[in-house]
Amino acid sequence: MWRSLRPIGRSGASGGYRRYAWTGADAECRLWFQAQAEARGLDHEVDRNGNQWAWLGDPLRGDAVVTGSHLDSVPDGGAFDGPLGVVSSFAALDELRRRGAVFTKPFAITNFGDEEGARFGLACVGSRLAAGQLTVEHAHRLRDGEGVSLPQAMEAAGYDPDAVGPDSERLARIGAFVELHVEQGRALDIGGDPVGVASAIWPHGRWRFDFRGEANHAGTTRLADRRDPMLTYAETVLAARREAELAGGLATFGKIAVEPNGVNAIPSLVRGWLDSRAADQDTLDTLVGAVERAAREHAEKAGIALDVVRESFTPVVEFRHALRDEIRRVLDGGDPHGTGRPAPVLGTGAGHDAGILSASVPTAMLFVRNPTGVSHSPAEHATEDDCVAGVLALADVLEGLACS
Amino acid sequence: MWRSLRPIGRSGASGGYRRYAWTGADAECRLWFQAQAEARGLDHEVDRNGNQWAWLGDPLRGDAVVTGSHLDSVPDGGAFDGPLGVVSSFAALDELRRRGAVFTKPFAITNFGDEEGARFGLACVGSRLAAGQLTVEHAHRLRDGEGVSLPQAMEAAGYDPDAVGPDSERLARIGAFVELHVEQGRALDIGGDPVGVASAIWPHGRWRFDFRGEANHAGTTRLADRRDPMLTYAETVLAARREAELAGGLATFGKIAVEPNGVNAIPSLVRGWLDSRAADQDTLDTLVGAVERAAREHAEKAGIALDVVRESFTPVVEFRHALRDEIRRVLDGGDPHGTGRPAPVLGTGAGHDAGILSASVPTAMLFVRNPTGVSHSPAEHATEDDCVAGVLALADVLEGLACS
Repeated sequence: MWRSLRPIGRSGASGGYRRYAWTGADAECRLWFQAQAEARGLDHEVDRNGNQWAWLGDPLRGDAVVTGSHLDSVPDGGAFDGPLGVVSSFAALDELRRRGAVFTKPFAITNFGDEEGARFGLACVGSRLAAGQLTVEHAHRLRDGEGVSLPQAMEAAGYDPDAVGPDSERLARIGAFVELHVEQGRALDIGGDPVGVASAIWPHGRWRFDFRGEANHAGTTRLADRRDPMLTYAETVLAARREAELAGGLATFGKIAVEPNGVNAIPSLVRGWLDSRAADQDTLDTLVGAVERAAREHAEKAGIALDVVRESFTPVVEFRHALRDEIRRVLDGGDPHGTGRPAPVLGTGAGHDAGILSASVPTAMLFVRNPTGVSHSPAEHATEDDCVAGVLALADVLEGLACS
Repeated sequence: MWRSLRPIGRSGASGGYRRYAWTGADAECRLWFQAQAEARGLDHEVDRNGNQWAWLGDPLRGDAVVTGSHLDSVPDGGAFDGPLGVVSSFAALDELRRRGAVFTKPFAITNFGDEEGARFGLACVGSRLAAGQLTVEHAHRLRDGEGVSLPQAMEAAGYDPDAVGPDSERLARIGAFVELHVEQGRALDIGGDPVGVASAIWPHGRWRFDFRGEANHAGTTRLADRRDPMLTYAETVLAARREAELAGGLATFGKIAVEPNGVNAIPSLVRGWLDSRAADQDTLDTLVGAVERAAREHAEKAGIALDVVRESFTPVVEFRHALRDEIRRVLDGGDPHGTGRPAPVLGTGAGHDAGILSASVPTAMLFVRNPTGVSHSPAEHATEDDCVAGVLALADVLEGLACS
């Protein structure tokens, strides 16, 4: 199953994946999902927001147990972030059939569209639209780096952009959603556990900082006459790191766009994106406020105009304690990994479709150990043994939820 | 004449010009040049390195007087940088014919190819190739941001990339080269003079700084576990400004490329280009050395690998004193601007084809006042009166050189 998915959207240069929403690579991933569903006799459908579903049993009956993740990637992402959850879902179904388990509830596997937001700058578009956490108007205004709008991209891929929007009827049919994901830190590795259960997702967001100065010739403009926004950007990058250390949170400037971006031209515009996260809302507010204040102080001194726009935001997500405890009970009852310890419970700074859905649906997450903690990079990894442990744990959980 | 050139390669969004070497806009500029030449009965030819020539008289006779500049632009450049010299050359010829001047030497107007280096990152490619200051091997290795090589781009534009190379025979036929250019600073404006004569071009170069860290997830990687090259880049940008102030030179990071350039990904690579210039070689060496040292210190502390590559370099150019003095004599003799003062002599931090040619040919430059000093920007400007003053001064100089 892995083998057929592996080459899709892989860059020969970096070895990383470039599976962006509504591109050819995305379409290939979708065909792969459909083929996996059909090979198992599941009913394949795509909802109005571009999310894929593979159903066993009658979706309309309600109280369905759903598992899945996403197949798209960040630029030059790794093989596991997203796909591990989808592949493990199909593998867990195979395992349950091997065990002869009988489903007493409807069951589905999902592939949520545009989780990473690599193309349009907003993460979890598919699940946000379904959950009513992203308005249709906002979605229709999204544009990629080439100026192509989300509706244009959807249309080019053969989907109807006018059909997107809240889908509470569909979400109401779900009794429990479980997402398995490769861990994006080293907590499990440090603790020596192959699989863990999520407690919460940190609040997190993206802020765009537009620093506007004056384009000029780099070889003839005296330093004193310059209004160079690159300098203010640089001060802000360093301030973000300092403030993140002070607050005990995370702050990253990983994406930049410069105009005119010529070697011998002082830029007119430097646009930098801040990704920031913290364990609670107050800490995050303090952190981002301090970065913005530092940026404004430097901008004022340097004659730079600064606009700060919050492009996306996700509040803290506490997963349902009842479902989490049920999952730990199922996992620990069998002690499937032989660690003799209960599966650890851990928080994460990464956003997930499960986090979006948790506002509407009882939701839980399983994490599979990532020995290096590296994520969003071709070096991202999970061992084969740990992937198998993840599949077995997911199968246990699904059996407990859907077959009891 | 201006009117027909103005719309070519102009961006509707920025109002600036995007006339990059061997693009459609470049081809249109070349057709414009050819049409201007033919309208005046000049013989049009393109040399092996893609430079255009419009000849009056027999090029083979030798001791020719040549004037011209370039028509390509930086990204979102202004209307004057380059084109003012070419337009003024044709206008000066018109003025000389109006005066009934008789040419006693062969005369030509030129448009040098790829002066700004906006596409392939190396400035003055046309004149460097002709003067033997750029090897054919190096030129053939040049690639643009899309990965298109210079030979591929030339071929696509209908030129033979295998024909490029030193053209000393052609340069030996030139007795004097004069380039008129809009000033790229405010020295003439401060002094109250419409036209000035160049003394020297500062030594200048471009250095590429590759900061390599480790791509990782911005939401899950602890600050302590990061190797984020954006931080080291930011430190280096600020160090460059500090060192330029200390040295009394110029240092600019105006172009950047980031991989993977995702909002929620710590970059694996930040590539920044340093443009640096100073009045003399020692000062420039000290300045660039200090920037590189600061970058290495920060890189080492942060676990970042740093490569610094000098992509281009032009030593100091002192224009010929004899030609310069002759030009000042011609200009001052008539006191054409009524300032009652000799035309001022000024240095510049900007590179020019005239600087490249000066190693092989007696070369001089005229500057036309730029009231704001703004350059490499749509805001670049010269008044109509000053442009006329420039044309008359160039006509005087050409009359003195070619018609005496």
